[in-house]
Amino acid sequence: MKPILVFQTDFTYKEGAVSSMYGVVKSVDRELEIMDGTHELPQYDTWSASYRLYQSLPFWPEGTIYVSVVDPGVGTSRRACVAKTKDGHYVVSPDNGSLTHVKRYIGIEAVREIDESVNRLRGKGTEEVAIFHGRDLFGYTAARLASGIIDFEGVGPEYPVDEIVEHEILEPVVEPGRAAGVFEINDPNFGNLWTNIPLKEFQKAGFSYGDYVYVTIKHEGETVFEKKVLFHQSFGFAQKGDPMIYNNELMKVAMAVSQGSLCEKFNLSYGPDWTVEFTLDK
Amino acid sequence: MKPILVFQTDFTYKEGAVSSMYGVVKSVDRELEIMDGTHELPQYDTWSASYRLYQSLPFWPEGTIYVSVVDPGVGTSRRACVAKTKDGHYVVSPDNGSLTHVKRYIGIEAVREIDESVNRLRGKGTEEVAIFHGRDLFGYTAARLASGIIDFEGVGPEYPVDEIVEHEILEPVVEPGRAAGVFEINDPNFGNLWTNIPLKEFQKAGFSYGDYVYVTIKHEGETVFEKKVLFHQSFGFAQKGDPMIYNNELMKVAMAVSQGSLCEKFNLSYGPDWTVEFTLDK
Amino acid sequence: MKPILVFQTDFTYKEGAVSSMYGVVKSVDRELEIMDGTHELPQYDTWSASYRLYQSLPFWPEGTIYVSVVDPGVGTSRRACVAKTKDGHYVVSPDNGSLTHVKRYIGIEAVREIDESVNRLRGKGTEEVAIFHGRDLFGYTAARLASGIIDFEGVGPEYPVDEIVEHEILEPVVEPGRAAGVFEINDPNFGNLWTNIPLKEFQKAGFSYGDYVYVTIKHEGETVFEKKVLFHQSFGFAQKGDPMIYNNELMKVAMAVSQGSLCEKFNLSYGPDWTVEFTLDK
Repeated sequence: MKPILVFQTDFTYKEGAVSSMYGVVKSVDRELEIMDGTHELPQYDTWSASYRLYQSLPFWPEGTIYVSVVDPGVGTSRRACVAKTKDGHYVVSPDNGSLTHVKRYIGIEAVREIDESVNRLRGKGTEEVAIFHGRDLFGYTAARLASGIIDFEGVGPEYPVDEIVEHEILEPVVEPGRAAGVFEINDPNFGNLWTNIPLKEFQKAGFSYGDYVYVTIKHEGETVFEKKVLFHQSFGFAQKGDPMIYNNELMKVAMAVSQGSLCEKFNLSYGPDWTVEFTLDK
Repeated sequence: MKPILVFQTDFTYKEGAVSSMYGVVKSVDRELEIMDGTHELPQYDTWSASYRLYQSLPFWPEGTIYVSVVDPGVGTSRRACVAKTKDGHYVVSPDNGSLTHVKRYIGIEAVREIDESVNRLRGKGTEEVAIFHGRDLFGYTAARLASGIIDFEGVGPEYPVDEIVEHEILEPVVEPGRAAGVFEINDPNFGNLWTNIPLKEFQKAGFSYGDYVYVTIKHEGETVFEKKVLFHQSFGFAQKGDPMIYNNELMKVAMAVSQGSLCEKFNLSYGPDWTVEFTLDK
Repeated sequence: MKPILVFQTDFTYKEGAVSSMYGVVKSVDRELEIMDGTHELPQYDTWSASYRLYQSLPFWPEGTIYVSVVDPGVGTSRRACVAKTKDGHYVVSPDNGSLTHVKRYIGIEAVREIDESVNRLRGKGTEEVAIFHGRDLFGYTAARLASGIIDFEGVGPEYPVDEIVEHEILEPVVEPGRAAGVFEINDPNFGNLWTNIPLKEFQKAGFSYGDYVYVTIKHEGETVFEKKVLFHQSFGFAQKGDPMIYNNELMKVAMAVSQGSLCEKFNLSYGPDWTVEFTLDK
C-alpha cells in the first residue's frame, strides 16, 4: 500500500482551504489515504507545529508522510522542504522552526528543498497565487511522493541538515529533591501544562507517586502559584477541582486540575517566561 | 472488508492526541478504516458520550467498532471494556456511564473487560503512561479487534451486563392534553434542546402539527419560560427568530428557534434540573 | 474506483449528526470514501455554502460528489436537488442559493430534483423525521449515486437550470487607477477579507506588487478605514501587524494583517454593506 498522508495546519475547517488542498491530493492520485493530524494549531505558531509533530509522528507507521503547514513566511524566501527522519518518516513542511523537535529528539537523516519548477501545482489560475503553499506546493509534493511519481531525490536538491532552522529548546535543571524547568506547551483542550522535565529524571531526584510536592510557578520572574500538590499517576487520584502533578503521554512531568482546567483556574500559560520549580521540602 | 472504526472523544483536534491515537491504529493494521464520530464531546461528560453513542451507533453497518473515550477516571480502577450490542455493533469504552443509553435502548449482549496484560500498547515509553488510554488501550484494542488479531473473547474476561455502570434516565409523564419531562440534551451547534418525550406519546396525548402549545420551562423549580409555541414538522414553518416545537431526529419532542438559538435567546440549558411541560389548554 | 463523497455542512462535530449521516452512507455501501469538506460553515448561511463550494470543488477529481447541507428550509417546499456541473462534478444540496457561484462561475449542465419516494432513508423511525435531510435524503442519495445503485437520471425529474435559486452577486468597478468593490467573504480563521475584484483587472488598472495603495473601506456608506496599504504577493512582505493587500487563492484582491487578524484589528466584516475602494493617488 502507498504511504499514508497525515496533515497538520493552522487553517481550521472554517472555510474551504483544507478541502481544496485535499482535492489536489486526490487529483494527483485517487488512491491516496489522507488523515487529519490537526487543522487547529495556533495560528502562525511554528513552535506548536514542531511540538505536535514530535508528539504524534512516532506513532505512525514507517513511511508515513506528515505534512505540516504553519507558514507565516509563505511566499517569501524561507525554504520549503521534505525531511526524512531516522525512523523512516517523511515531514513536508516550511523550514521555519517546525522541524525543531523532530531534528533534536528523533533525528533527521536528510533534507531536500522542494524544487518549485517541478513540484508545484499548475493550472486553474494557481501560478500567480503566492499565499497557499499548503495546496499548491506542500500538499501537491507530498501527494506526488506518496504516489511514487517522485522519489525522495525527486523532491529537489539536498541541503545540510545543520541548516535546518531551529527554535531554542530550554533544558531543565534536576538535582536531588529539586526539579526546575519551564512549561513548554499546553494541552489546550483540558487546560493542562506540560513541563520540559522528563519523568525519569524527576523520579531519580526523589519524587514518587503519592508525594505531596512544593510547586512554585513564576511568570517573568514573579511568583504566581505556590502550593503543595499531589504527584500521582493519573487525574482520578486527586479530588475533583484540585491541582495535581502527573506523568504525561510523552513521559514528561505535567500539571492538571482533576476534571478541570489548570490554565483557567490559576490563570497560567506556557512559554519561556513560565518557569516551574518542584521541591520535596519547602 | 474489515469493520470500520469510529471514534468519539472529548480530546478535540487542538493538539496531537487524536493523531497519535490514530497512528497507533494504523500501526496495528495499515488497512483499517478510521472515521471521526466526534472529538468535541463536552469534557469529562460521560452522559453526553452515552447520548451521542445512542444517537449515532444505529446508523452504522453491523460489525462497526465504536470507540468512545470520555474518561475522567483514566488510570484508576474503573473498568475498560468492550460491549457487544444486540444489533451487532461493538463499543470500546471505559465502563463509566458511557454505555447507559446503548444498554437501555439498544441492548448489550455481552461485555468483556480489556485484559491490559495482552491488549495494551508497549514500547516508545508508553508503559508508564497512565493518562492516555485512548491511545494505549482503547484505540489499540479496537484496532486489534477490527484487524482480527483478537476476537471478542480475546478482549479479556466477560463480566455480567448487569454490572455495567449506568446514569439515571428520567422518564416523562404523558397524559391526555399534557406532556411533562426534562431537556435531556442539547444540540450545541444550533442551540436546540431535546426532551425525553417520545413523539408517538406526544401525539397520542393530543398534540398535532400546527397546534400552538402552552410551554412552561422551569430551572430548579423556578419558571424561566412561559409561552404559546407552534408545534410543527420543521423549523421553516415558524417565523425566523420564533421558538417552535418539533420532532427531532431521534423521534423525540424538541424545541428550537427558527434560524436562531433557543438556548442563547432564552438562556436555557439541559439536565435533570431543566423541566418542561407542554399543555393544550392553559 | 467509485467517486469520492465530500461533505460540507453547518452541523459542526459537536454532537452526533455528522456521525449518523456518515453511518448511513457506509450502510448504503461500505466501500464509499467520505471526506470532510467542512462542517463549520456559518449556521443557516447559504451564501457561505455557495462560496466554499466555488472555492473547493474545482480542485477535486472529475466525478466527485460534493454534498452541501446548509438548509434553513429543511422540510419545507424548497427543492432538494443534484446538479451536474460543466466540469463533471456533482453537487447534492438544497436548492436554496447554495448553488449560486457554481452556476455562475463553473456552469451547471443539468439539475434534478431528488425523488423522495425512491431516494429517502427508511426504517429506524426516520420516516417521520422532517428536520435531518443531511442524513435521510442528501447523504443517502449521494451514497446511492456514488455506489452506482442509481445513475444521475435515477435521482429524480430534471428541471430547468434557469430555475435554480441564486443569490445576487455584486460586480466590481475597475478603471485606470481605481478599483471599487465589496468584501464578499472572509477567511474566518486568519481574519482576512476577500473582495470581488479579480487580480487581473486590478493589475490592468495599474496596481503592481510593491505599490502603496490608498484604501477606503465603508460600512453602510460610512468610512471606517482609510489608509495607505502595501500591495504585495504574500503576507511576509509586510511588517508583522501591518495591513496589506494581496492576491488570494482564488485570484482575487484580498486584505490581511501580517501574522494577525484584519477583521479583529480594524473591526471589519463582509457582505454587501462593506464596500472597499483602492486608488493609486489620493
